[in-house]
Amino acid sequence: MIAVLKKNTTEQQMSTLVDWLRAQNLDVHISQGHNYTVLGLIGDTSAIDMDLIASLDIVESVKRVSEPFKQCSRKFRPGDTVIDVGGVKIGGGHFAMIAGPCSVESREQIIEVAKSVKAAGATLLRGGAFKPRTSPYDFQGLKADGIELLLEAKKETGMPIVTEIMNAAHLPLFEHVDLIQVGARNMQNFELLKELGRTDKPILLKRGLANTIKELLMSAEYIMAGGNYRIILCERGIRTYETYTRNTLDLSAIPLLKELSHLPVVVDPSHATGNSKLVRPMALAGTASGADGLMIEVHNDPIHAACDGAQSLTPEQFAETATKVLQIRALLAE
Amino acid sequence: MIAVLKKNTTEQQMSTLVDWLRAQNLDVHISQGHNYTVLGLIGDTSAIDMDLIASLDIVESVKRVSEPFKQCSRKFRPGDTVIDVGGVKIGGGHFAMIAGPCSVESREQIIEVAKSVKAAGATLLRGGAFKPRTSPYDFQGLKADGIELLLEAKKETGMPIVTEIMNAAHLPLFEHVDLIQVGARNMQNFELLKELGRTDKPILLKRGLANTIKELLMSAEYIMAGGNYRIILCERGIRTYETYTRNTLDLSAIPLLKELSHLPVVVDPSHATGNSKLVRPMALAGTASGADGLMIEVHNDPIHAACDGAQSLTPEQFAETATKVLQIRALLAE
Amino acid sequence: MIAVLKKNTTEQQMSTLVDWLRAQNLDVHISQGHNYTVLGLIGDTSAIDMDLIASLDIVESVKRVSEPFKQCSRKFRPGDTVIDVGGVKIGGGHFAMIAGPCSVESREQIIEVAKSVKAAGATLLRGGAFKPRTSPYDFQGLKADGIELLLEAKKETGMPIVTEIMNAAHLPLFEHVDLIQVGARNMQNFELLKELGRTDKPILLKRGLANTIKELLMSAEYIMAGGNYRIILCERGIRTYETYTRNTLDLSAIPLLKELSHLPVVVDPSHATGNSKLVRPMALAGTASGADGLMIEVHNDPIHAACDGAQSLTPEQFAETATKVLQIRALLAE
Amino acid sequence: MIAVLKKNTTEQQMSTLVDWLRAQNLDVHISQGHNYTVLGLIGDTSAIDMDLIASLDIVESVKRVSEPFKQCSRKFRPGDTVIDVGGVKIGGGHFAMIAGPCSVESREQIIEVAKSVKAAGATLLRGGAFKPRTSPYDFQGLKADGIELLLEAKKETGMPIVTEIMNAAHLPLFEHVDLIQVGARNMQNFELLKELGRTDKPILLKRGLANTIKELLMSAEYIMAGGNYRIILCERGIRTYETYTRNTLDLSAIPLLKELSHLPVVVDPSHATGNSKLVRPMALAGTASGADGLMIEVHNDPIHAACDGAQSLTPEQFAETATKVLQIRALLAE
Repeated sequence: MIAVLKKNTTEQQMSTLVDWLRAQNLDVHISQGHNYTVLGLIGDTSAIDMDLIASLDIVESVKRVSEPFKQCSRKFRPGDTVIDVGGVKIGGGHFAMIAGPCSVESREQIIEVAKSVKAAGATLLRGGAFKPRTSPYDFQGLKADGIELLLEAKKETGMPIVTEIMNAAHLPLFEHVDLIQVGARNMQNFELLKELGRTDKPILLKRGLANTIKELLMSAEYIMAGGNYRIILCERGIRTYETYTRNTLDLSAIPLLKELSHLPVVVDPSHATGNSKLVRPMALAGTASGADGLMIEVHNDPIHAACDGAQSLTPEQFAETATKVLQIRALLAE
Repeated sequence: MIAVLKKNTTEQQMSTLVDWLRAQNLDVHISQGHNYTVLGLIGDTSAIDMDLIASLDIVESVKRVSEPFKQCSRKFRPGDTVIDVGGVKIGGGHFAMIAGPCSVESREQIIEVAKSVKAAGATLLRGGAFKPRTSPYDFQGLKADGIELLLEAKKETGMPIVTEIMNAAHLPLFEHVDLIQVGARNMQNFELLKELGRTDKPILLKRGLANTIKELLMSAEYIMAGGNYRIILCERGIRTYETYTRNTLDLSAIPLLKELSHLPVVVDPSHATGNSKLVRPMALAGTASGADGLMIEVHNDPIHAACDGAQSLTPEQFAETATKVLQIRALLAE
Repeated sequence: MIAVLKKNTTEQQMSTLVDWLRAQNLDVHISQGHNYTVLGLIGDTSAIDMDLIASLDIVESVKRVSEPFKQCSRKFRPGDTVIDVGGVKIGGGHFAMIAGPCSVESREQIIEVAKSVKAAGATLLRGGAFKPRTSPYDFQGLKADGIELLLEAKKETGMPIVTEIMNAAHLPLFEHVDLIQVGARNMQNFELLKELGRTDKPILLKRGLANTIKELLMSAEYIMAGGNYRIILCERGIRTYETYTRNTLDLSAIPLLKELSHLPVVVDPSHATGNSKLVRPMALAGTASGADGLMIEVHNDPIHAACDGAQSLTPEQFAETATKVLQIRALLAE
Repeated sequence: MIAVLKKNTTEQQMSTLVDWLRAQNLDVHISQGHNYTVLGLIGDTSAIDMDLIASLDIVESVKRVSEPFKQCSRKFRPGDTVIDVGGVKIGGGHFAMIAGPCSVESREQIIEVAKSVKAAGATLLRGGAFKPRTSPYDFQGLKADGIELLLEAKKETGMPIVTEIMNAAHLPLFEHVDLIQVGARNMQNFELLKELGRTDKPILLKRGLANTIKELLMSAEYIMAGGNYRIILCERGIRTYETYTRNTLDLSAIPLLKELSHLPVVVDPSHATGNSKLVRPMALAGTASGADGLMIEVHNDPIHAACDGAQSLTPEQFAETATKVLQIRALLAE
């Protein structure tokens, strides 16, 4: 960590600060310039409150030189991490095609969608059982019954399943779930992350609507600090001033996350855009940006079919998109 | 709810949609113009997925006419709600002055700060016991011990206490806490909100970093839907592109929240700005904007004292600020 | 336009508003529901100040049903517009590969870069002569001399050139420039847009850092309203809270702009990311999202070469990227 | 400026960079740590492209230690600047109350509003003659005629006038205007700023919708670099994800700007909120935050009067607000 002191700092003020820093077990390397003094802080700076130092009157600015994330960093583990999800590999060249309905609604629905997305090339089945909704009066999902139905679809099709957890107390229900999703709103629910760190389940960690790339990696770090290294990161759009799309899909996060971390990264173009017409182009763009997988909403319900169009793709649209996605993957691998 | 259909919608498409809407128990009022058709949907539209309808190909746009929040709305309860927190009233003309350290660190610290902020006019004592930290390697608070120390400070000074909860499983530890804080990162931790709705404790609900005013009210609605009506809203800054301040304090949210809702609203200028020099002007501005209270960090530790300045105010700075705040309050009440 | 009136609006208030609206030459279609009254406003609503109506006490909300843009709308002209820039076609299946240095620095530099990007597949040469800089003390470009050097490079290589204009008074200097760029900071410099609307030059209009997709189209509309229909839109990143990248490239804007408008859309991955390592993946992603072209910074100067890396690509990196881009284009066209 | 080099930088790479920096007339002070090397760059770093250095592969990060602004900095001129606008002083304890209609519409209108705001305590008259509008089809103002009418209102009431300029070519029309406004959309129209720097007119510089506090000061610096030091800064709301208010008024910018700069700062609560009910509380809050003045829209037209409410205040609402504002000013000065 580097702290730049203001020009008019007195010797007395500086030595008070330096003594305090040394009492925190840091080596302090002082480099005096004409216009400012730079303190280089060496040692375990991760426990130091950067904001506290930055807020001192004599301090011009503070800068972390080393990244705050460790176990998820590519410096820590240079090779790509490959995650095995119920026999399906993700990362390190293995591409995940995750598809399924927004919510599990019935046995017929989930099995029909599962079969159709499998036929179209999907490798994992997604479906919401516990649904985070802005309003307490909105449909909150089928909950435990939804997970039961997903497990039936898994048995029927052989596809591993992914579904969202909202409460660590529900963990027993997720025993046979292959990949547990942490939704955007819970990305900094640190208590939930800690509990998931104590499991041996693969975790799909979605980026929060207002969270930075660094914060996403720090949330992965929370899970890893507990001993669970099987994490897949997911970009699903961030909140900006633009209102034409529901969120703004930040695709530059993909190559950046893959440079900073060894963890696999997937893209969810359905939630990001909230508009079925944008799902295909954003699925292709996400693939071209280097993602390790996609997560796409596919439905088969009649109101959509009748009126043609929704955030979800039809199975036919998904199949057509999946074909192009695999062609781009092949092209990148050349 | 109003749905505007596109110009080229066929009779067949429209009647499929109208039939489906009526099957959802809605009255549909059709008003046909030259360039578009407007469907007025009457009935309980709160259970209708607005995004689903908006995403249909034949739909130009959808608009909720009635607000999605109910019990927290001023339409539902026109008069100001007054919350009693351990004998201290907040709202409806009662102003709360909440002060204390960021984290509870020791018995001596919390009691010393409690005494000094009480002397300076504070009516509630704040102090962090469970701390949400971006990094798993940062200090996570004294936890249960921190709450014990707060309770000792309460006994010593008679001030009701407020501290943050991060996990519903910790609720038994909060039995004697007077006001339970839900932090910004947990504003949409719906499972936690539901649990708090089942308690009879006053809740201080902080606005999330990227949450809208509507979403803040919907989160209050989650707590109220469970039967707990004792909620105080808190503006503490939102995330924007500006980096000079830690967050951007959105003071226009204060009069807006007070127009939309009957719940009391307080302002936290310390976390919003992350800069002690901005705390006083933003405390005065928040008061002038019509807030029902302030929440201010006050410290007494030596590194701050030595180097003069931090996000926290010294007890002396707090006392001077509190005096001006009360003068502005008096002026507004004239 | 649709205006929803509040429940407690009196007959008297409503008729005052309706009379005023009719005095603005609008037909008013009143549709009274149980809970609200909807006014459908028919006629030329483009001159009506939506904010003024929305701000009236009796008005719950106002909504434009028709888009505010006209000539740039795909409803106005369904087929893709193809722009001819000095013999190079852009749009309607014609892909533009625009490359060159950030700033024109010398005769040798611009000619060398021009030759190398041409060899690598570039079809237009870019280079900054007038440079918008945040600081008045930063290098402001070679100005008129820079344009002269670009024209020499054009003569030498036969490539049409594109460079930025910052002041309508400079227009005479742009006589032989093939494509005039309006930079992000001037996207709403309406006086400049009006002047450009009176020329017959193709215009490359960059999206402002905080401008919506609608505002970008409205700025195109300013140019078109003057009679100049030769406009190419450019997505170059928007300003968000994320600080790891310089801006956030909004690739979902590409398919959206192409749905809303008939104008060609290109992507500038260099300025958006400010990081050479992200240029290639974002160039590929932009292509996969359906863009009609790319605009990429390419350099040849020694400090970059020596230290390997910058926002700009080397000619070799550009050539490698261009090859993949064209493969993705071919794949999309299948 | 400080550049932190990456751990694995070779001697050869470092000396190439150091030689290049020295060739730019900088002293380079090398301080080698265990984990990184810090280069302290001393000399005139304002001409150095920070992004270029930051983008080099061997560079971990770059940080300006000295602020990029000079003449507008409080370090350069510690005392408050007081600007004389047609005999009315602003800054250094002098508070400006600027009021008037959004647009000048007619002789009667502007003179009537001028008289009523003067009676209510306004010290300057505002009114739009050239109007920046998102749509080319919207009313663009009365232009030269509008300025003529403002000058008549000035003669009638003796109030100095402020109105917006959009084009340097219009400067002759502004000869008798007392304070020239640069609107938010033109804050980085550097060519306009340079022209205004060559005049001797006081300038009201509004913050752009997506511009940082630093960028606002750099735009002031553009004007000052030309020799015109008479600048008043104006906070008028920034663009965020919140849609309930038109923009988010960033009041923490007020004390921050006053700490960083000696220039006066005023607040425009009308444009920021777009909602007349929020104007009064935000005017009071802006005053309490330490602003040197306010800029408020006041109207007298019948549609507003009839339906009661708009972004503008009525003269009566303005008078009531002005009274409270002056009481808060008096209280802060105690």
